[in-house]
Amino acid sequence: MSIITIERKVLEKNDEIAQRNRSLFRNRGVLALNLVSSPGAGKTSLLEKTFQELKGSIKMAVIEGDVQTDLDAKRVANYGVPVIQIVTMGGCHLEAKLIEDALQKLDLSNLELLFIENVGNLVCPANYDLGEAAKVVVVSITEGEDKPLKYPGMFRNSSVLVINKIDLAPYVNCDLKALRNNALQINPALRIFETSCYTGDGIQEWCKWLRDRDFAKP
Amino acid sequence: MSIITIERKVLEKNDEIAQRNRSLFRNRGVLALNLVSSPGAGKTSLLEKTFQELKGSIKMAVIEGDVQTDLDAKRVANYGVPVIQIVTMGGCHLEAKLIEDALQKLDLSNLELLFIENVGNLVCPANYDLGEAAKVVVVSITEGEDKPLKYPGMFRNSSVLVINKIDLAPYVNCDLKALRNNALQINPALRIFETSCYTGDGIQEWCKWLRDRDFAKP
Repeated sequence: MSIITIERKVLEKNDEIAQRNRSLFRNRGVLALNLVSSPGAGKTSLLEKTFQELKGSIKMAVIEGDVQTDLDAKRVANYGVPVIQIVTMGGCHLEAKLIEDALQKLDLSNLELLFIENVGNLVCPANYDLGEAAKVVVVSITEGEDKPLKYPGMFRNSSVLVINKIDLAPYVNCDLKALRNNALQINPALRIFETSCYTGDGIQEWCKWLRDRDFAKP
Repeated sequence: MSIITIERKVLEKNDEIAQRNRSLFRNRGVLALNLVSSPGAGKTSLLEKTFQELKGSIKMAVIEGDVQTDLDAKRVANYGVPVIQIVTMGGCHLEAKLIEDALQKLDLSNLELLFIENVGNLVCPANYDLGEAAKVVVVSITEGEDKPLKYPGMFRNSSVLVINKIDLAPYVNCDLKALRNNALQINPALRIFETSCYTGDGIQEWCKWLRDRDFAKP
């Protein structure tokens, strides 16, 4: 029982800090997106494609969350985008305080779009608000169409679903229509994109959606 | 600080119960394997293939752990193998107590091989001993070769690695040799299998390994 109480307090404290982060983002005109997924669904590849497409037109940065290693940060840094690395040392999700600390190292006056790449985990990050404008859940088509039903918390708390690796559709037993329907059953408001970071399919639509966000500095 | 202490106590309590489960398994001549992976790596498909292959020759059962839904339990039940469903209601891992309770519902005297299918999560289940003889980590080749480096806890605590969906090798950017090397760098004692539950490749080797375990009842 005491554990549940403490867990609630942890979440309350987290939400407080997340709210501070959210106010900061709003005041500084930064759109923050929290990228969540299973390990290997393609969050970093999606970022790479996004940087190729939007570099020069939108001022972007990344906060990279990893259990261990800075492999993703290195991949992203290749695109000349500012990267802050958070290594959770075994921790299964990012928390608002970690983001608040990381923000000290970013020049927000020179930033429009901040991607926060969460730890690869379809369960725990769902409950931790980081102050983002929206969670973007990335699912690989190879994971099967049942994932929204099996991990509903993440799909309920996300605003955008990116179905990635659609180039593999001919080779896997995944009913793409059922995947979309299952996701919309959990969260009818989900904005859904279908992408392949291998062929580039769908990247334009995703980037158009990003471009259409309001990046007017206050 | 108090949170860290409580977390340690939770793990200590868990380890105590896990040890009771382990003794029970040993006394009753049951080999228990804890299947862990990212969501959608193919744990349930591997079980289906295993049941097709071993049914009639080894007495098997499954404890199914899911955040939500009994979809996997239904798939497995098709093979006439006893299934106990645990729904964690948002919880990100199984704990030893949940297994202890589930064991009340299984006839251990009529059981040789127990599969525990954990929640799809490559982080949290790594730290929770359930009393299993071994953790078997399943990785889909579509997740990329860097996963052992990025989620080392799970690979360090596992005894067996099943690299699944190898039929997709021609279509994905995954260096299979590097994946094996990365896994062995984290845990040189890993026994590695390569499988495709789609073509059936490698299933014989995996099942031979299972058959070669000692199922002599005490």
